[in-house]
Amino acid sequence: MPDNLSGIFPPLTTPFSDDEVSFENLIENLKKYELQMLAGYVLFGSNGESAFLTGEEKIKLVRTVREHTKRTLIVGTGFDSIKETISLSNKAAEFGANYALIITPSFFKSEMKHRTFLNYYTKVAESVMIPVIIYNVPKFTNVNIETETIMELSAHPNIAGLKDSTENSARISEINANVHSGFRLIVGTASVLYPGLINGATAGILALANIAPDQCYQIYRFFKERNFEKALEIQNRMIPVNRAVTAKFGVAGLKAAMDILGYYGGKPRLPLEPLNEAQIIELKMNLKTALLLE
Amino acid sequence: MPDNLSGIFPPLTTPFSDDEVSFENLIENLKKYELQMLAGYVLFGSNGESAFLTGEEKIKLVRTVREHTKRTLIVGTGFDSIKETISLSNKAAEFGANYALIITPSFFKSEMKHRTFLNYYTKVAESVMIPVIIYNVPKFTNVNIETETIMELSAHPNIAGLKDSTENSARISEINANVHSGFRLIVGTASVLYPGLINGATAGILALANIAPDQCYQIYRFFKERNFEKALEIQNRMIPVNRAVTAKFGVAGLKAAMDILGYYGGKPRLPLEPLNEAQIIELKMNLKTALLLE
Amino acid sequence: MPDNLSGIFPPLTTPFSDDEVSFENLIENLKKYELQMLAGYVLFGSNGESAFLTGEEKIKLVRTVREHTKRTLIVGTGFDSIKETISLSNKAAEFGANYALIITPSFFKSEMKHRTFLNYYTKVAESVMIPVIIYNVPKFTNVNIETETIMELSAHPNIAGLKDSTENSARISEINANVHSGFRLIVGTASVLYPGLINGATAGILALANIAPDQCYQIYRFFKERNFEKALEIQNRMIPVNRAVTAKFGVAGLKAAMDILGYYGGKPRLPLEPLNEAQIIELKMNLKTALLLE
Amino acid sequence: MPDNLSGIFPPLTTPFSDDEVSFENLIENLKKYELQMLAGYVLFGSNGESAFLTGEEKIKLVRTVREHTKRTLIVGTGFDSIKETISLSNKAAEFGANYALIITPSFFKSEMKHRTFLNYYTKVAESVMIPVIIYNVPKFTNVNIETETIMELSAHPNIAGLKDSTENSARISEINANVHSGFRLIVGTASVLYPGLINGATAGILALANIAPDQCYQIYRFFKERNFEKALEIQNRMIPVNRAVTAKFGVAGLKAAMDILGYYGGKPRLPLEPLNEAQIIELKMNLKTALLLE
Repeated sequence: MPDNLSGIFPPLTTPFSDDEVSFENLIENLKKYELQMLAGYVLFGSNGESAFLTGEEKIKLVRTVREHTKRTLIVGTGFDSIKETISLSNKAAEFGANYALIITPSFFKSEMKHRTFLNYYTKVAESVMIPVIIYNVPKFTNVNIETETIMELSAHPNIAGLKDSTENSARISEINANVHSGFRLIVGTASVLYPGLINGATAGILALANIAPDQCYQIYRFFKERNFEKALEIQNRMIPVNRAVTAKFGVAGLKAAMDILGYYGGKPRLPLEPLNEAQIIELKMNLKTALLLE
Repeated sequence: MPDNLSGIFPPLTTPFSDDEVSFENLIENLKKYELQMLAGYVLFGSNGESAFLTGEEKIKLVRTVREHTKRTLIVGTGFDSIKETISLSNKAAEFGANYALIITPSFFKSEMKHRTFLNYYTKVAESVMIPVIIYNVPKFTNVNIETETIMELSAHPNIAGLKDSTENSARISEINANVHSGFRLIVGTASVLYPGLINGATAGILALANIAPDQCYQIYRFFKERNFEKALEIQNRMIPVNRAVTAKFGVAGLKAAMDILGYYGGKPRLPLEPLNEAQIIELKMNLKTALLLE
Repeated sequence: MPDNLSGIFPPLTTPFSDDEVSFENLIENLKKYELQMLAGYVLFGSNGESAFLTGEEKIKLVRTVREHTKRTLIVGTGFDSIKETISLSNKAAEFGANYALIITPSFFKSEMKHRTFLNYYTKVAESVMIPVIIYNVPKFTNVNIETETIMELSAHPNIAGLKDSTENSARISEINANVHSGFRLIVGTASVLYPGLINGATAGILALANIAPDQCYQIYRFFKERNFEKALEIQNRMIPVNRAVTAKFGVAGLKAAMDILGYYGGKPRLPLEPLNEAQIIELKMNLKTALLLE
Repeated sequence: MPDNLSGIFPPLTTPFSDDEVSFENLIENLKKYELQMLAGYVLFGSNGESAFLTGEEKIKLVRTVREHTKRTLIVGTGFDSIKETISLSNKAAEFGANYALIITPSFFKSEMKHRTFLNYYTKVAESVMIPVIIYNVPKFTNVNIETETIMELSAHPNIAGLKDSTENSARISEINANVHSGFRLIVGTASVLYPGLINGATAGILALANIAPDQCYQIYRFFKERNFEKALEIQNRMIPVNRAVTAKFGVAGLKAAMDILGYYGGKPRLPLEPLNEAQIIELKMNLKTALLLE
């Protein structure tokens, strides 16, 4: 299994123009990100609006990104359906994906328990050609995969790690102390990057890295250099702006911030709505407080 | 718009054999249902395990069911993605579906509000060739579409009705009093069929109708004949068994009950697990108390 | 056990003046309610802001209301502490309360299950001098007492009934079909008064009865006269305004509506805040639509 | 304002014998805790079963504990009612409490927002004779006090700190970076003691300290000595056992663990039930894994 799951990964937003995927704008953004100290990219994270993309669009997006970078490429390929998950994962692999990031199934919420998760991830992992990363994001799925289940799955040779998008650092710490060596913990939200790293995470897949790739990297770098005070200072500066572009304004806010900061954000896809004027003003204040905007 | 949304519709379970769709077993079940006073069938409701089916399997299932019945065929075709929803709906229409049952989008829960739902359903309804039925099921989606939004959408010429799977009869009553005439209210769970009908609903899409089609029909018939005492008596007898095969044991329980009662249930698809022995014993007791089993 | 649990009961709001209980204003309201066809009154329901009252204030309120009415008086006396519950219930009885309305304990949410509820209500019922009414209100407590538990408790000679403030009429119907005869079901919110009555409830404890006592009574009366269309017509007219003064604007809204309609509402007690101007305008529109205001 | 909010504080369980408070057993436990490196004690935390105690019992408990220790004494005195809160807080102060730990009001959940919390805590803080500590515990209250509200309240001269019982270390970090100097952050659950300290907390009020006072203290001490590896090692060992005696088995489990480890635990008060045999065996396994039991 390759070991390239260390550092900062932005989960790329998907640019739209007239509600259709705009590949040119994606490439423009990518060129800017390639100048940053990023470890790689994630396609089809939550903020990539993958829920609104068709299978065909997804494949074309994998191909496009792979053509423009040599960095690690992690692709979100999970559905409730095991068959669909395997199929998309293997197609993504064929077009250059290095890892398949697979969100917990969640439709039958009350059934999503230890046994069910073992069934799901074991079946998927043994049928997918590239290593699998488990993706736990209760905010969107309303299910949570327990630490015991992760520990057990960490023994599977084709399950490479966990992206955890809770803000619960006890979880990260407990998991890190108990999983099989080589299993990677990836922080899923910028607000807990620093405590996550302290507790054993090796990477962050951070929506915030779309607009503040350098700041996210600096937290990572200062941590590695054991300059904890500096890391924590940047971390605390990023918490409020991260909340604004994730919890408060959602993907529309993240895209508005990209537009403000020189990337292409554009509108979210229908049925989502872009921010209104008042929200943009508030967002700019958040960016200024975080020293991302003058 | 055709008016054939009155009466009882079972949301058909999908039979699997070795984890693959078993079309023969589906046809066997259908033959039995055709002998019952059912108004039609629903494919790809929640209990149809549509979350675990591929697009290809779905189309083949629509085709198969259409070949074996002349009754109204309602097909679940909703995704978060508007494009995918339109595409599957139109394919289903082509193969004989009469209505597209479209679950509320739900991935970005906190964004699923009045404007977003209007955007979504308006766009979908204007692009789908058959009439659309809104499907509200907070138990699985964790979002709820408000009565005001439904009232507004009820004016759209291609939106035919609402399947509401809450147990809140104040909702049904309020909606019924305020929607455009011709808009159909469909009760989504057998536990509130009788109060739903009293409050203006014209139909029920009821998981319970997979195992108790006649009892569900009798509630409907007695209500129509204004024999309220009789309707209520059967209704109350069905509430506990309905809770067993939906809330308590889920789709695995519904399928186990089908096996017990002479239909083909079989196992749920992976990652779900079938009932264990103790659960089957408890389920049988529920069926006996409801007089569905001797 | 007396049988006077039929008809409409307003859960009286507690008037404050300078944040202190205003007994005079309460008496003024009572005089107006005495002219209405109400079966009695409830003190210390949720909308009575009982959470903000001291034990001493409560006793003085019971005494005051008893001095001004001969109707049935139901008093909310429940705490998580069994000892405190028994003590307040018996004091209230001494000063004229006919029933003790006892909210489900709820602090240790995950422990509030079948056995715990049996322990609690059995112990309370055997130590309180007046009959006990169970009060289930998940909206405020985040716990729900299951139908099985209610059925078992309904056999206790000193447990007179259940006030259920969910909008789930399957619950009411199922409970009614299974409890010991003589056990009374009381609807806890005006939005489901009519379906509740149809399903066997005999009374309503309705916040809305503070501002629309006659309309609530008319639903009850038309139902008793089997004039279902008339009952349903008023019911549907009341649903939106009921939602406004409960879910949307809460107790501050209910009190503002009382001020608008000729009762004394006043401000809620600290820490709650009164409605602002914009909210009052919206509330007035709700009252007009419901034909409560011209 | 005294500064004695550093270190480890067990929130004492309340011993019962025949369902009555057993002061002797409390004193026996206290004598053992006095031999440990604890900074003080908390009375009437959630695990103290304060929800089940009467006002009289509480006062007698404060008095008893004060007679047997010179350490800092923090007393839980919050109710939804501002009047009751002030009254109990001042009585507790009179009998020797150093701080009043005041849980967020929570009955009217949807109204518990920025303005309401400011109203509540400002009014309480200006009327209570001892410094106030805000207590945020969404697990029991289903409300959450936002970081902005805490920042604003931290400026009040009589609000000394916050006990936060979420496991969200982004919250602790953000609050710590923004509150007025002198405001103390107290971790409310042992599972995040170490990340909490790293993020600026100065103390822990930890249910686990009832059974593992020395281990909790060692995490604190090693952190202070900047021996992070050692602190983290003990922290990770404590996470599973902490989950067992809090989330999984609740107060009954905490008390059972006390009995096993040489303290007096006893039964929880009615309506709660003690652990059964199978649960005790599982609990012992948890204690062994954590090296608390041989």
